[in-house]
Amino acid sequence: MAMPRTLHLLLLLVAMALVVSCSPMPTSVLATKRRQAMDEAAAARIHALRPLRGSGRELASRGGVACDSWALGVEAHNVRDWKTVPASCEGYVGHYMLGSHYRRDSQVVVDEAVAYAETLKLAGNGKEVWVFDIDETTLSNLPYYANHGFGTKPFNATSFNAYVLEGSAPALPETRRLYSKLVSIGVKPVFLTGRTEDQRAVTVANLRRQGFSGWMNLLLKQPGFKGSAVAYKSGERQKLQDAGYAIVGNIGDQWSDILGAPEGARTFKLPDPMYYIG
Amino acid sequence: MAMPRTLHLLLLLVAMALVVSCSPMPTSVLATKRRQAMDEAAAARIHALRPLRGSGRELASRGGVACDSWALGVEAHNVRDWKTVPASCEGYVGHYMLGSHYRRDSQVVVDEAVAYAETLKLAGNGKEVWVFDIDETTLSNLPYYANHGFGTKPFNATSFNAYVLEGSAPALPETRRLYSKLVSIGVKPVFLTGRTEDQRAVTVANLRRQGFSGWMNLLLKQPGFKGSAVAYKSGERQKLQDAGYAIVGNIGDQWSDILGAPEGARTFKLPDPMYYIG
Repeated sequence: MAMPRTLHLLLLLVAMALVVSCSPMPTSVLATKRRQAMDEAAAARIHALRPLRGSGRELASRGGVACDSWALGVEAHNVRDWKTVPASCEGYVGHYMLGSHYRRDSQVVVDEAVAYAETLKLAGNGKEVWVFDIDETTLSNLPYYANHGFGTKPFNATSFNAYVLEGSAPALPETRRLYSKLVSIGVKPVFLTGRTEDQRAVTVANLRRQGFSGWMNLLLKQPGFKGSAVAYKSGERQKLQDAGYAIVGNIGDQWSDILGAPEGARTFKLPDPMYYIG
Repeated sequence: MAMPRTLHLLLLLVAMALVVSCSPMPTSVLATKRRQAMDEAAAARIHALRPLRGSGRELASRGGVACDSWALGVEAHNVRDWKTVPASCEGYVGHYMLGSHYRRDSQVVVDEAVAYAETLKLAGNGKEVWVFDIDETTLSNLPYYANHGFGTKPFNATSFNAYVLEGSAPALPETRRLYSKLVSIGVKPVFLTGRTEDQRAVTVANLRRQGFSGWMNLLLKQPGFKGSAVAYKSGERQKLQDAGYAIVGNIGDQWSDILGAPEGARTFKLPDPMYYIG
Protein backbone atom coordinates (compact mmCIF):
# COMPACT_ATOMS: atom_id res chain seq x y z
CA MET A 1 0.00 0.00 0.00
CA ALA A 2 1.54 3.32 -1.04
CA MET A 3 -0.97 5.68 0.63
CA PRO A 4 0.22 7.07 3.95
CA ARG A 5 -1.52 5.65 6.99
CA THR A 6 -2.79 9.06 8.07
CA LEU A 7 -4.76 9.30 4.85
CA HIS A 8 -6.42 5.97 5.56
CA LEU A 9 -7.27 7.17 9.04
CA LEU A 10 -8.71 10.38 7.63
CA LEU A 11 -10.81 8.38 5.18
CA LEU A 12 -12.01 6.22 8.03
CA LEU A 13 -12.96 9.25 10.10
CA VAL A 14 -14.82 10.84 7.20
CA ALA A 15 -16.69 7.61 6.55
CA MET A 16 -17.55 7.21 10.21
CA ALA A 17 -18.69 10.83 10.46
CA LEU A 18 -21.00 10.30 7.49
CA VAL A 19 -22.51 7.18 8.99
CA VAL A 20 -22.95 8.87 12.35
CA SER A 21 -24.48 11.99 10.86
CA CYS A 22 -26.97 9.91 8.84
CA SER A 23 -27.98 7.62 11.69
CA PRO A 24 -31.24 8.49 13.39
CA MET A 25 -30.97 9.49 17.04
CA PRO A 26 -32.29 6.75 19.33
CA THR A 27 -35.73 8.30 19.63
CA SER A 28 -37.11 5.11 21.09
CA VAL A 29 -35.05 5.84 24.21
CA LEU A 30 -36.98 9.01 24.72
CA ALA A 31 -40.46 9.32 25.99
CA THR A 32 -41.60 12.67 24.71
CA LYS A 33 -41.01 15.19 21.96
CA ARG A 34 -39.63 17.53 24.58
CA ARG A 35 -37.09 14.90 25.53
CA GLN A 36 -36.17 14.48 21.86
CA ALA A 37 -35.56 18.18 21.50
CA MET A 38 -33.34 18.18 24.58
CA ASP A 39 -31.32 15.31 23.24
CA GLU A 40 -30.89 16.86 19.83
CA ALA A 41 -29.58 19.96 21.54
CA ALA A 42 -27.22 17.79 23.51
CA ALA A 43 -26.07 15.91 20.42
CA ALA A 44 -25.24 19.20 18.77
CA ARG A 45 -22.88 19.91 21.64
CA ILE A 46 -20.68 16.98 20.67
CA HIS A 47 -18.32 18.67 18.31
CA ALA A 48 -15.66 16.66 16.56
CA LEU A 49 -15.71 12.90 16.43
CA ARG A 50 -12.86 11.78 18.62
CA PRO A 51 -12.98 8.00 18.65
CA LEU A 52 -9.43 7.65 20.04
CA ARG A 53 -9.10 4.10 18.86
CA GLY A 54 -5.38 3.99 18.13
CA SER A 55 -3.18 1.53 19.94
CA GLY A 56 -2.69 2.12 23.63
CA ARG A 57 0.97 2.76 22.95
CA GLU A 58 0.22 5.53 20.45
CA LEU A 59 -2.36 7.04 22.75
CA ALA A 60 -0.10 6.88 25.79
CA SER A 61 2.67 8.57 23.85
CA ARG A 62 0.45 11.57 23.22
CA GLY A 63 -0.93 11.53 26.74
CA GLY A 64 -4.32 10.19 25.69
CA VAL A 65 -6.62 7.44 26.81
CA ALA A 66 -8.04 4.60 24.72
CA CYS A 67 -11.63 5.53 25.53
CA ASP A 68 -13.27 2.31 24.38
CA SER A 69 -10.74 0.25 26.37
CA TRP A 70 -11.30 2.48 29.37
CA ALA A 71 -15.08 1.98 29.09
CA LEU A 72 -14.62 -1.79 28.80
CA GLY A 73 -12.43 -1.62 31.91
CA VAL A 74 -15.29 0.10 33.73
CA GLU A 75 -17.85 -2.50 32.62
CA ALA A 76 -15.64 -5.46 33.60
CA HIS A 77 -14.91 -3.82 36.97
CA ASN A 78 -11.22 -3.41 36.32
CA VAL A 79 -11.34 0.38 36.43
CA ARG A 80 -12.70 1.34 39.86
CA ASP A 81 -13.12 4.34 42.13
CA TRP A 82 -12.89 6.90 39.35
CA LYS A 83 -14.26 10.38 39.94
CA THR A 84 -14.89 11.67 36.42
CA VAL A 85 -14.74 10.42 32.83
CA PRO A 86 -11.33 11.30 31.29
CA ALA A 87 -11.75 14.73 29.66
CA SER A 88 -10.53 13.38 26.32
CA CYS A 89 -13.37 10.79 26.36
CA GLU A 90 -16.31 13.23 26.43
CA GLY A 91 -16.83 12.78 22.68
CA TYR A 92 -16.54 9.02 22.90
CA VAL A 93 -19.00 8.71 25.79
CA GLY A 94 -21.39 11.19 24.19
CA HIS A 95 -21.50 9.26 20.93
CA TYR A 96 -21.81 5.98 22.81
CA MET A 97 -24.76 7.19 24.89
CA LEU A 98 -26.65 9.14 22.21
CA GLY A 99 -25.96 6.80 19.32
CA SER A 100 -27.13 3.21 18.95
CA HIS A 101 -24.26 1.58 20.83
CA TYR A 102 -25.58 2.04 24.38
CA ARG A 103 -29.00 0.77 23.37
CA ARG A 104 -27.54 -2.24 21.59
CA ASP A 105 -25.32 -3.18 24.53
CA SER A 106 -28.31 -2.84 26.88
CA GLN A 107 -30.39 -5.07 24.62
CA VAL A 108 -27.91 -7.92 24.99
CA VAL A 109 -28.01 -7.60 28.79
CA VAL A 110 -31.81 -7.65 28.88
CA ASP A 111 -32.01 -10.48 26.34
CA GLU A 112 -29.91 -12.55 28.76
CA ALA A 113 -32.07 -11.49 31.71
CA VAL A 114 -35.31 -12.37 29.91
CA ALA A 115 -33.88 -15.73 28.80
CA TYR A 116 -32.90 -16.42 32.41
CA ALA A 117 -36.34 -15.33 33.70
CA GLU A 118 -37.97 -17.81 31.32
CA THR A 119 -36.09 -20.66 32.98
CA LEU A 120 -37.40 -19.81 36.47
CA LYS A 121 -39.63 -22.34 38.18
CA LEU A 122 -41.74 -20.26 40.54
CA ALA A 123 -42.82 -21.77 43.85
CA GLY A 124 -46.29 -20.24 43.54
CA ASN A 125 -46.14 -18.55 46.95
CA GLY A 126 -45.56 -15.05 45.56
CA LYS A 127 -42.21 -14.79 47.31
CA GLU A 128 -39.92 -14.37 44.28
CA VAL A 129 -38.66 -10.84 43.79
CA TRP A 130 -36.34 -9.09 41.32
CA VAL A 131 -34.32 -6.08 42.48
CA PHE A 132 -34.07 -3.08 40.15
CA ASP A 133 -31.82 -0.10 40.68
CA ILE A 134 -33.40 3.13 39.40
CA ASP A 135 -30.94 5.70 37.98
CA GLU A 136 -29.35 4.54 34.70
CA THR A 137 -31.15 1.21 35.21
CA THR A 138 -34.88 1.98 35.19
CA LEU A 139 -34.87 5.72 34.53
CA SER A 140 -32.29 7.47 32.38
CA ASN A 141 -30.60 10.69 33.42
CA LEU A 142 -29.05 11.06 29.99
CA PRO A 143 -30.91 14.35 29.36
CA TYR A 144 -29.06 15.75 32.39
CA TYR A 145 -25.64 14.27 31.64
CA ALA A 146 -25.80 15.25 27.97
CA ASN A 147 -25.91 18.85 29.16
CA HIS A 148 -23.20 18.35 31.78
CA GLY A 149 -20.26 16.88 29.90
CA PHE A 150 -21.28 13.21 29.96
CA GLY A 151 -19.56 12.61 33.29
CA THR A 152 -16.39 14.57 32.54
CA LYS A 153 -17.32 17.20 35.14
CA PRO A 154 -17.42 16.62 38.91
CA PHE A 155 -20.85 15.61 40.21
CA ASN A 156 -22.97 18.63 41.09
CA ALA A 157 -25.58 17.58 43.66
CA THR A 158 -27.53 20.85 43.38
CA SER A 159 -28.14 20.78 39.63
CA PHE A 160 -28.61 17.00 39.56
CA ASN A 161 -31.20 17.06 42.34
CA ALA A 162 -33.02 19.86 40.56
CA TYR A 163 -33.19 17.60 37.51
CA VAL A 164 -34.48 14.67 39.58
CA LEU A 165 -37.19 16.85 41.08
CA GLU A 166 -38.52 17.57 37.56
CA GLY A 167 -39.62 13.93 37.53
CA SER A 168 -39.03 13.88 33.80
CA ALA A 169 -36.41 11.14 33.41
CA PRO A 170 -37.28 8.78 30.53
CA ALA A 171 -37.46 5.02 30.98
CA LEU A 172 -34.72 2.75 29.74
CA PRO A 173 -36.82 0.85 27.22
CA GLU A 174 -34.86 -2.39 27.56
CA THR A 175 -35.33 -2.44 31.33
CA ARG A 176 -39.03 -1.73 30.91
CA ARG A 177 -39.21 -4.78 28.66
CA LEU A 178 -37.63 -6.91 31.41
CA TYR A 179 -39.91 -5.37 34.05
CA SER A 180 -43.04 -6.20 32.05
CA LYS A 181 -41.84 -9.72 31.43
CA LEU A 182 -41.23 -10.33 35.14
CA VAL A 183 -44.61 -8.92 36.18
CA SER A 184 -46.29 -11.11 33.56
CA ILE A 185 -44.75 -14.30 34.96
CA GLY A 186 -45.40 -13.38 38.61
CA VAL A 187 -41.99 -12.19 39.81
CA LYS A 188 -42.39 -9.09 41.98
CA PRO A 189 -40.26 -6.03 41.23
CA VAL A 190 -38.50 -4.28 44.09
CA PHE A 191 -36.84 -0.92 43.46
CA LEU A 192 -33.71 -0.37 45.54
CA THR A 193 -32.18 3.03 44.94
CA GLY A 194 -29.60 5.44 46.29
CA ARG A 195 -32.24 8.17 45.93
CA THR A 196 -33.28 9.46 49.35
CA GLU A 197 -36.60 9.10 51.17
CA ASP A 198 -37.49 12.77 50.56
CA GLN A 199 -37.51 12.02 46.81
CA ARG A 200 -40.17 9.32 47.14
CA ALA A 201 -43.12 11.27 45.71
CA VAL A 202 -41.31 12.55 42.63
CA THR A 203 -39.74 9.14 42.02
CA VAL A 204 -43.12 7.39 42.19
CA ALA A 205 -44.61 9.98 39.84
CA ASN A 206 -41.71 9.65 37.40
CA LEU A 207 -41.89 5.86 37.39
CA ARG A 208 -45.67 5.84 36.82
CA ARG A 209 -45.36 8.44 34.04
CA GLN A 210 -42.86 6.14 32.34
CA GLY A 211 -45.14 3.14 32.42
CA PHE A 212 -44.00 1.32 35.55
CA SER A 213 -46.59 -0.01 37.96
CA GLY A 214 -47.20 -2.97 40.23
CA TRP A 215 -43.93 -2.95 42.14
CA MET A 216 -43.87 -4.56 45.56
CA ASN A 217 -41.47 -2.12 47.23
CA LEU A 218 -39.69 1.14 46.56
CA LEU A 219 -36.72 1.21 48.94
CA LEU A 220 -35.06 4.61 49.26
CA LYS A 221 -32.09 5.59 51.39
CA GLN A 222 -33.09 6.76 54.85
CA PRO A 223 -31.85 10.06 56.29
CA GLY A 224 -28.61 9.65 58.21
CA PHE A 225 -27.40 6.47 56.50
CA LYS A 226 -23.62 6.80 56.24
CA GLY A 227 -22.34 3.49 54.83
CA SER A 228 -21.19 2.60 51.31
CA ALA A 229 -23.56 1.80 48.48
CA VAL A 230 -22.62 -1.88 48.74
CA ALA A 231 -23.35 -1.90 52.50
CA TYR A 232 -26.69 -0.12 52.01
CA LYS A 233 -27.90 -2.25 49.14
CA SER A 234 -26.71 -5.63 50.40
CA GLY A 235 -28.22 -4.77 53.80
CA GLU A 236 -31.60 -4.10 52.20
CA ARG A 237 -31.39 -7.31 50.20
CA GLN A 238 -30.59 -9.19 53.39
CA LYS A 239 -33.78 -7.78 54.97
CA LEU A 240 -35.80 -8.98 51.99
CA GLN A 241 -34.31 -12.42 52.33
CA ASP A 242 -34.89 -12.45 56.09
CA ALA A 243 -38.53 -11.62 55.40
CA GLY A 244 -38.83 -14.80 53.36
CA TYR A 245 -38.35 -13.45 49.85
CA ALA A 246 -36.21 -15.17 47.24
CA ILE A 247 -34.19 -12.65 45.21
CA VAL A 248 -34.17 -14.41 41.85
CA GLY A 249 -32.52 -11.54 39.99
CA ASN A 250 -30.84 -8.18 40.48
CA ILE A 251 -30.06 -5.57 37.83
CA GLY A 252 -28.14 -2.32 38.05
CA ASP A 253 -25.70 -0.09 36.19
CA GLN A 254 -23.14 -0.02 39.01
CA TRP A 255 -21.10 -2.90 40.39
CA SER A 256 -22.14 -1.65 43.84
CA ASP A 257 -25.72 -2.57 42.88
CA ILE A 258 -24.86 -6.22 42.40
CA LEU A 259 -21.92 -6.97 44.71
CA GLY A 260 -22.25 -7.96 48.37
CA ALA A 261 -24.13 -10.97 49.71
CA PRO A 262 -26.93 -11.69 49.21
CA GLU A 263 -26.43 -10.55 45.61
CA GLY A 264 -29.46 -12.35 44.23
CA ALA A 265 -29.48 -15.66 42.36
CA ARG A 266 -28.35 -13.96 39.15
CA THR A 267 -27.04 -10.45 38.57
CA PHE A 268 -26.99 -8.21 35.51
CA LYS A 269 -24.77 -5.20 34.86
CA LEU A 270 -26.11 -2.55 32.49
CA PRO A 271 -23.54 -0.27 30.85
CA ASP A 272 -22.73 3.09 32.41
CA PRO A 273 -19.60 4.94 31.31
CA MET A 274 -20.76 8.26 32.88
CA TYR A 275 -20.21 7.81 36.60
CA TYR A 276 -19.00 5.44 39.29
CA ILE A 277 -20.59 4.77 42.68
CA GLY A 278 -18.42 2.70 45.02
CA MET B 1 -27.25 14.05 2.80
CA ALA B 2 -28.26 12.66 -0.59
CA MET B 3 -25.94 9.65 -0.69
CA PRO B 4 -27.71 6.43 0.25
CA ARG B 5 -26.72 5.03 3.64
CA THR B 6 -25.42 1.81 2.09
CA LEU B 7 -22.83 3.85 0.19
CA HIS B 8 -21.68 5.42 3.42
CA LEU B 9 -21.42 1.99 4.99
CA LEU B 10 -19.46 0.73 2.02
CA LEU B 11 -17.10 3.69 2.30
CA LEU B 12 -16.70 2.95 5.98
CA LEU B 13 -15.93 -0.70 5.30
CA VAL B 14 -13.39 0.19 2.61
CA ALA B 15 -11.71 2.68 4.93
CA MET B 16 -11.66 0.20 7.78
CA ALA B 17 -10.31 -2.53 5.52
CA LEU B 18 -7.51 -0.21 4.39
CA VAL B 19 -6.60 0.67 7.95
CA VAL B 20 -6.71 -2.95 9.01
CA SER B 21 -4.68 -4.14 6.03
CA CYS B 22 -2.02 -1.47 6.61
CA SER B 23 -1.77 -1.98 10.36
CA PRO B 24 1.15 -4.09 11.48
CA MET B 25 0.18 -7.39 13.08
CA PRO B 26 0.81 -7.28 16.84
CA THR B 27 4.21 -8.86 16.54
CA SER B 28 5.04 -7.90 20.09
CA VAL B 29 2.44 -10.47 21.20
CA LEU B 30 4.43 -13.15 19.49
CA ALA B 31 7.65 -14.60 20.73
CA THR B 32 9.21 -16.10 17.64
CA LYS B 33 9.34 -15.78 13.88
CA ARG B 34 7.64 -19.14 13.64
CA ARG B 35 4.82 -17.81 15.73
CA GLN B 36 4.60 -14.78 13.46
CA ALA B 37 4.31 -16.96 10.41
CA MET B 38 1.54 -18.98 12.05
CA ASP B 39 -0.34 -15.84 12.93
CA GLU B 40 -0.02 -14.38 9.46
CA ALA B 41 -1.44 -17.60 8.11
CA ALA B 42 -4.27 -17.32 10.60
CA ALA B 43 -4.92 -13.68 9.74
CA ALA B 44 -5.21 -14.64 6.10
CA ARG B 45 -8.00 -17.01 7.07
CA ILE B 46 -10.19 -14.13 8.18
CA HIS B 47 -11.94 -13.36 4.97
CA ALA B 48 -14.37 -10.51 4.79
CA LEU B 49 -14.57 -7.88 7.47
CA ARG B 50 -17.86 -8.46 9.23
CA PRO B 51 -18.03 -5.92 12.02
CA LEU B 52 -21.79 -6.38 12.57
CA ARG B 53 -22.19 -3.10 14.32
CA GLY B 54 -25.68 -2.17 13.25
CA SER B 55 -28.41 -1.66 15.80
CA GLY B 56 -29.52 -4.73 17.72
CA ARG B 57 -32.91 -4.37 16.09
CA GLU B 58 -31.46 -4.47 12.56
CA LEU B 59 -29.25 -7.39 13.45
CA ALA B 60 -32.05 -9.31 15.15
CA SER B 61 -34.25 -8.82 12.12
CA ARG B 62 -31.71 -10.60 9.95
CA GLY B 63 -31.04 -13.24 12.59
CA GLY B 64 -27.65 -11.84 13.52
CA VAL B 65 -25.84 -10.96 16.67
CA ALA B 66 -24.30 -7.61 17.62
CA CYS B 67 -20.84 -9.12 18.10
CA ASP B 68 -19.30 -6.22 19.99
CA SER B 69 -22.29 -6.08 22.35
CA TRP B 70 -22.12 -9.84 22.83
CA ALA B 71 -18.39 -9.59 23.68
CA LEU B 72 -19.09 -6.76 26.14
CA GLY B 73 -21.77 -8.97 27.70
CA VAL B 74 -19.17 -11.70 28.14
CA GLU B 75 -16.66 -9.32 29.75
CA ALA B 76 -19.23 -7.84 32.16
CA HIS B 77 -20.42 -11.37 33.08
CA ASN B 78 -23.89 -10.88 31.71
CA VAL B 79 -23.50 -13.55 29.03
CA ARG B 80 -22.70 -16.82 30.84
CA ASP B 81 -22.45 -20.54 30.22
CA TRP B 82 -21.99 -20.22 26.47
CA LYS B 83 -20.47 -23.13 24.56
CA THR B 84 -19.13 -21.48 21.42
CA VAL B 85 -18.73 -18.01 19.93
CA PRO B 86 -21.74 -17.23 17.66
CA ALA B 87 -20.77 -18.41 14.17
CA SER B 88 -21.46 -14.97 12.71
CA CYS B 89 -18.89 -13.45 15.12
CA GLU B 90 -15.83 -15.39 13.91
CA GLY B 91 -14.67 -12.39 11.86
CA TYR B 92 -15.28 -9.96 14.70
CA VAL B 93 -13.42 -12.05 17.27
CA GLY B 94 -10.59 -12.77 14.83
CA HIS B 95 -10.05 -9.11 14.10
CA TYR B 96 -10.33 -8.25 17.77
CA MET B 97 -7.73 -10.82 18.79
CA LEU B 98 -5.25 -10.34 15.94
CA GLY B 99 -5.56 -6.58 15.61
CA SER B 100 -4.64 -3.97 18.20
CA HIS B 101 -7.93 -4.01 20.11
CA TYR B 102 -7.23 -7.00 22.36
CA ARG B 103 -3.79 -5.69 23.22
CA ARG B 104 -5.13 -2.23 23.98
CA ASP B 105 -7.93 -3.54 26.21
CA SER B 106 -5.39 -5.71 28.05
CA GLN B 107 -3.13 -2.70 28.57
CA VAL B 108 -5.85 -0.84 30.45
CA VAL B 109 -6.40 -3.84 32.74
CA VAL B 110 -2.69 -4.17 33.51
CA ASP B 111 -2.27 -0.42 33.93
CA GLU B 112 -4.92 -0.61 36.66
CA ALA B 113 -3.24 -3.64 38.24
CA VAL B 114 0.19 -1.98 38.25
CA ALA B 115 -1.26 1.22 39.73
CA TYR B 116 -2.93 -0.87 42.45
CA ALA B 117 0.30 -2.82 43.11
CA GLU B 118 2.12 0.47 43.63
CA THR B 119 -0.24 1.35 46.49
CA LEU B 120 0.49 -1.88 48.40
CA LYS B 121 2.19 -1.58 51.78
CA LEU B 122 4.01 -4.89 52.18
CA ALA B 123 4.38 -6.37 55.66
CA GLY B 124 7.95 -7.45 54.95
CA ASN B 125 7.31 -11.06 55.94
CA GLY B 126 7.27 -12.39 52.38
CA LYS B 127 3.68 -13.56 52.73
CA GLU B 128 2.01 -11.47 50.04
CA VAL B 129 1.12 -13.41 46.89
CA TRP B 130 -0.58 -12.62 43.59
CA VAL B 131 -2.52 -15.36 41.80
CA PHE B 132 -2.13 -15.67 38.03
CA ASP B 133 -4.20 -17.91 35.81
CA ILE B 134 -2.16 -19.31 32.88
CA ASP B 135 -4.13 -19.82 29.65
CA GLU B 136 -5.18 -16.51 28.03
CA THR B 137 -3.78 -14.76 31.11
CA THR B 138 -0.06 -15.56 31.20
CA LEU B 139 0.35 -17.63 28.03
CA SER B 140 -1.66 -17.05 24.87
CA ASN B 141 -3.26 -19.87 22.92
CA LEU B 142 -4.14 -17.49 20.11
CA PRO B 143 -1.94 -19.43 17.64
CA TYR B 144 -4.20 -22.44 18.29
CA TYR B 145 -7.53 -20.61 18.28
CA ALA B 146 -6.63 -18.64 15.15
CA ASN B 147 -6.47 -21.96 13.34
CA HIS B 148 -9.63 -23.31 14.95
CA GLY B 149 -12.28 -20.70 14.25
CA PHE B 150 -11.59 -18.33 17.16
CA GLY B 151 -13.91 -20.19 19.49
CA THR B 152 -16.74 -20.77 17.01
CA LYS B 153 -16.10 -24.51 16.98
CA PRO B 154 -16.72 -26.87 19.91
CA PHE B 155 -13.66 -27.40 22.11
CA ASN B 156 -11.51 -30.27 20.86
CA ALA B 157 -9.48 -31.63 23.79
CA THR B 158 -7.27 -33.79 21.56
CA SER B 159 -6.00 -31.07 19.25
CA PHE B 160 -5.82 -28.49 22.03
CA ASN B 161 -3.76 -30.74 24.29
CA ALA B 162 -1.44 -31.51 21.39
CA TYR B 163 -0.91 -27.76 21.06
CA VAL B 164 -0.25 -27.36 24.80
CA LEU B 165 2.32 -30.15 24.66
CA GLU B 166 4.31 -28.20 22.06
CA GLY B 167 5.12 -25.78 24.89
CA SER B 168 5.20 -22.98 22.35
CA ALA B 169 2.48 -20.63 23.61
CA PRO B 170 3.66 -17.00 23.58
CA ALA B 171 3.47 -14.79 26.66
CA LEU B 172 0.84 -12.11 26.98
CA PRO B 173 3.19 -9.15 27.10
CA GLU B 174 0.96 -7.04 29.34
CA THR B 175 0.73 -9.78 31.95
CA ARG B 176 4.50 -10.25 31.81
CA ARG B 177 4.83 -6.55 32.58
CA LEU B 178 2.63 -6.98 35.68
CA TYR B 179 4.50 -10.13 36.71
CA SER B 180 7.88 -8.36 36.54
CA LYS B 181 6.53 -5.41 38.49
CA LEU B 182 5.23 -7.66 41.28
CA VAL B 183 8.46 -9.64 41.53
CA SER B 184 10.42 -6.38 41.69
CA ILE B 185 8.40 -5.12 44.67
CA GLY B 186 8.46 -8.44 46.52
CA VAL B 187 4.99 -9.86 45.84
CA LYS B 188 5.24 -13.57 45.09
CA PRO B 189 3.52 -14.94 41.97
CA VAL B 190 1.41 -18.08 42.28
CA PHE B 191 0.17 -19.78 39.12
CA LEU B 192 -3.22 -21.41 39.55
CA THR B 193 -4.36 -23.17 36.40
CA GLY B 194 -6.94 -25.60 35.09
CA ARG B 195 -4.09 -27.41 33.33
CA THR B 196 -3.57 -30.85 34.84
CA GLU B 197 -0.68 -32.19 36.89
CA ASP B 198 0.61 -34.31 33.96
CA GLN B 199 1.23 -31.06 32.04
CA ARG B 200 3.58 -29.67 34.70
CA ALA B 201 6.87 -30.20 32.85
CA VAL B 202 5.75 -28.68 29.57
CA THR B 203 4.06 -25.80 31.37
CA VAL B 204 7.20 -24.98 33.35
CA ALA B 205 9.30 -25.16 30.17
CA ASN B 206 6.86 -22.94 28.28
CA LEU B 207 6.73 -20.36 31.08
CA ARG B 208 10.54 -20.23 31.37
CA ARG B 209 10.93 -19.95 27.60
CA GLN B 210 8.61 -16.95 27.69
CA GLY B 211 10.60 -15.15 30.35
CA PHE B 212 8.78 -16.11 33.53
CA SER B 213 10.79 -17.16 36.56
CA GLY B 214 10.75 -16.83 40.32
CA TRP B 215 7.19 -17.99 40.99
CA MET B 216 6.39 -19.39 44.42
CA ASN B 217 3.93 -22.07 43.31
CA LEU B 218 2.57 -23.65 40.18
CA LEU B 219 -0.75 -25.20 41.18
CA LEU B 220 -2.19 -27.63 38.62
CA LYS B 221 -5.41 -29.62 38.78
CA GLN B 222 -4.93 -32.99 40.39
CA PRO B 223 -6.16 -36.20 38.72
CA GLY B 224 -9.68 -37.08 39.72
CA PHE B 225 -10.83 -33.56 40.70
CA LYS B 226 -14.46 -33.30 39.61
CA GLY B 227 -15.73 -29.93 40.86
CA SER B 228 -16.30 -26.69 38.99
CA ALA B 229 -13.54 -24.24 38.12
CA VAL B 230 -14.80 -21.87 40.81
CA ALA B 231 -14.74 -24.64 43.43
CA TYR B 232 -11.26 -25.75 42.40
CA LYS B 233 -9.71 -22.31 42.27
CA SER B 234 -11.37 -20.84 45.36
CA GLY B 235 -10.41 -24.02 47.25
CA GLU B 236 -6.75 -23.58 46.30
CA ARG B 237 -6.87 -19.91 47.28
CA GLN B 238 -8.36 -20.90 50.63
CA LYS B 239 -5.41 -23.26 51.19
CA LEU B 240 -2.99 -20.42 50.46
CA GLN B 241 -4.77 -18.21 52.94
CA ASP B 242 -4.88 -21.00 55.56
CA ALA B 243 -1.10 -21.35 55.11
CA GLY B 244 -0.70 -17.71 56.15
CA TYR B 245 -0.44 -16.03 52.76
CA ALA B 246 -2.23 -12.80 51.90
CA ILE B 247 -3.65 -12.86 48.38
CA VAL B 248 -3.20 -9.22 47.43
CA GLY B 249 -4.26 -9.68 43.82
CA ASN B 250 -5.75 -12.19 41.40
CA ILE B 251 -5.86 -11.97 37.59
CA GLY B 252 -7.53 -14.19 35.03
CA ASP B 253 -9.40 -14.17 31.75
CA GLN B 254 -12.41 -16.08 33.12
CA TRP B 255 -14.88 -14.96 35.76
CA SER B 256 -14.38 -18.39 37.32
CA ASP B 257 -10.76 -17.35 37.98
CA ILE B 258 -11.81 -14.45 40.18
CA LEU B 259 -15.16 -15.41 41.74
CA GLY B 260 -15.57 -17.44 44.93
CA ALA B 261 -14.20 -16.50 48.37
CA PRO B 262 -11.42 -15.87 49.04
CA GLU B 263 -11.17 -13.99 45.74
CA GLY B 264 -8.09 -11.98 46.66
CA ALA B 265 -8.00 -8.37 47.84
CA ARG B 266 -8.41 -7.09 44.30
CA THR B 267 -9.32 -8.95 41.12
CA PHE B 268 -8.65 -8.24 37.45
CA LYS B 269 -10.48 -9.64 34.43
CA LEU B 270 -8.54 -9.82 31.17
CA PRO B 271 -10.59 -9.99 27.97
CA ASP B 272 -11.39 -13.34 26.41
CA PRO B 273 -14.12 -13.56 23.77
CA MET B 274 -13.00 -17.04 22.59
CA TYR B 275 -14.24 -19.42 25.29
CA TYR B 276 -16.09 -19.67 28.58
CA ILE B 277 -15.18 -21.81 31.59
CA GLY B 278 -17.87 -21.91 34.27
